Amino acid sequence: MSASLPVEYQDVVRAAIRLDGVAHRTPVLTSRTLDDQVAARVFFKCENLQRMGAFKFRGAYNALSQLAARGSASGAIAYSSGNHAQAVALAGRLTGLSATIVMPENAPAVKLAATRDYGAEVITYDPEVIVREELAAQLAAERDLHLIPPFDHPHIIAGQGTAVRELLQEAGPLDLLLVPCGGGGLLSGSVLSARALSPGCRVVGVEPELGDDATRSFRTGKLCTVKNPATIADGARTSALGELTFPMVTQLVDDMVTVTDDALVAAMRWTMERMKIVVEPTAVLGLAALMERAVNAEGMRVGIVLSGGNVDLKQFAAWFGK
Amino acid sequence: MSASLPVEYQDVVRAAIRLDGVAHRTPVLTSRTLDDQVAARVFFKCENLQRMGAFKFRGAYNALSQLAARGSASGAIAYSSGNHAQAVALAGRLTGLSATIVMPENAPAVKLAATRDYGAEVITYDPEVIVREELAAQLAAERDLHLIPPFDHPHIIAGQGTAVRELLQEAGPLDLLLVPCGGGGLLSGSVLSARALSPGCRVVGVEPELGDDATRSFRTGKLCTVKNPATIADGARTSALGELTFPMVTQLVDDMVTVTDDALVAAMRWTMERMKIVVEPTAVLGLAALMERAVNAEGMRVGIVLSGGNVDLKQFAAWFGK
Repeated sequence: MSASLPVEYQDVVRAAIRLDGVAHRTPVLTSRTLDDQVAARVFFKCENLQRMGAFKFRGAYNALSQLAARGSASGAIAYSSGNHAQAVALAGRLTGLSATIVMPENAPAVKLAATRDYGAEVITYDPEVIVREELAAQLAAERDLHLIPPFDHPHIIAGQGTAVRELLQEAGPLDLLLVPCGGGGLLSGSVLSARALSPGCRVVGVEPELGDDATRSFRTGKLCTVKNPATIADGARTSALGELTFPMVTQLVDDMVTVTDDALVAAMRWTMERMKIVVEPTAVLGLAALMERAVNAEGMRVGIVLSGGNVDLKQFAAWFGK
Repeated sequence: MSASLPVEYQDVVRAAIRLDGVAHRTPVLTSRTLDDQVAARVFFKCENLQRMGAFKFRGAYNALSQLAARGSASGAIAYSSGNHAQAVALAGRLTGLSATIVMPENAPAVKLAATRDYGAEVITYDPEVIVREELAAQLAAERDLHLIPPFDHPHIIAGQGTAVRELLQEAGPLDLLLVPCGGGGLLSGSVLSARALSPGCRVVGVEPELGDDATRSFRTGKLCTVKNPATIADGARTSALGELTFPMVTQLVDDMVTVTDDALVAAMRWTMERMKIVVEPTAVLGLAALMERAVNAEGMRVGIVLSGGNVDLKQFAAWFGK
């Protein structure tokens, strides 16, 4: 904890004020069956029930609303084939800023359509020959657009931190908090809220075993990378932590653990059968860690962030059809 | 509205007191996308997030807790292959009363197991040769058990009415309320709460087209029946309204409409993709009626009871795999 952190809890508080009445204050759900099973008291923060189906809306709106408040005439540009694309698109529509999203031409048609439905201009590229970061930077310069990165930005991190702030306000202090980790934006924001509102809470980031770069970075203190991991947790396929999230995760988080894709399918099945909510694979990283006993939670009050619910229903046949 | 009604709103209030702290006060969710689409303001009462996954817990617990409070030494018996079985089983466990459930031997293994998991004794029968009502009545007499019917009982109706009571307390007065109708227990209880808390609200029951007995009963004023309707809405496969629910539905409800099974699949898909919650076919009867414009809702504040979320995930492949 030092004054040199790029984002502080006060930034999360300011983000919460911007998001008030715009983002859903998502419900916190519990399951007595699970509590009995794991001998703990578990609180699920249901960001799958957030607008556009994921916590990503929080960070995107926090960033774009500040651009709009400054009277920016330029729009926003983002590169994403996932939830960040729809988050920036929706935030653009709500703030009146144009949103341009760079997406691979082989992205699922349903995701391209959803992003356009929110009013964004979608620019597709051939991922075999184009590096998306370079294309987005080039378009940002040519068109005078603000690049909104998916996680490595103070406004994004601060916005994502508002979910755990709400969780702690509603559930009270926790002993353990399990947070999915892709690029580390959600995890970094979450740990700020936890340190401020529940100082004794152990904060653990969870990654898929196939995309364990942040866990290795955490263990070694050096930035590790992973290339196109084949995990079903598409929100955690990021190659590495960022310039801001690397120091935040390694300095503030208590531990990092990994779970297998099989454990993710089992946790998704449990969540849909017992909690009756739709979750994407990345969303159940924390629950899978709890169910697999990758962390000790016995007798504890445990918070789990269910990060999103954007899945193609056709996938269900592959996961649950047997 | 007459003093001769077998259940009154005050019975719903008393049921709510019994259920306080035992049943979940389920969330009321909204969708701006849907509101734009149908030009209305829609409030979903999410009973799919109720304990054991359906509103049925409310009525069963209201019935069994009164038996237990009277110091009954005898347990409860019920016949059901659906949500009522698990509801009575769970209510039995919570009240300390034994629960015996009569289920067809060809019921899905997962439902038989779930009912046993809640601590009930399951007695199976061959539906080709045995009439379940007769078997249950015989067992009730032999073993001195209280028969808890699935819908046609004042305690069941009063308990089911607590869901819409909560909805109106949270959302405020409504112009239109859409409620699934099987045996009419939920619909009868709901209309009591609506009349008391939102007198101007139009209450409409919704049935699957293939199981339209209550709609025909409502239109003709005579009790109509249907035999083993092949609808996917398994909660609405009941053959007829009951002795209590027939007069309540025909006297108190404003209208009855039907929807096709195709409309149910479309409404389930929408609910899972956009609301991110798991619903069973019966749960979306009201939403399907709204989406199909089977009722006029323009400019209205509309309540929809999503009655349950107990589906076998294997079914998803058939419904959403294409």
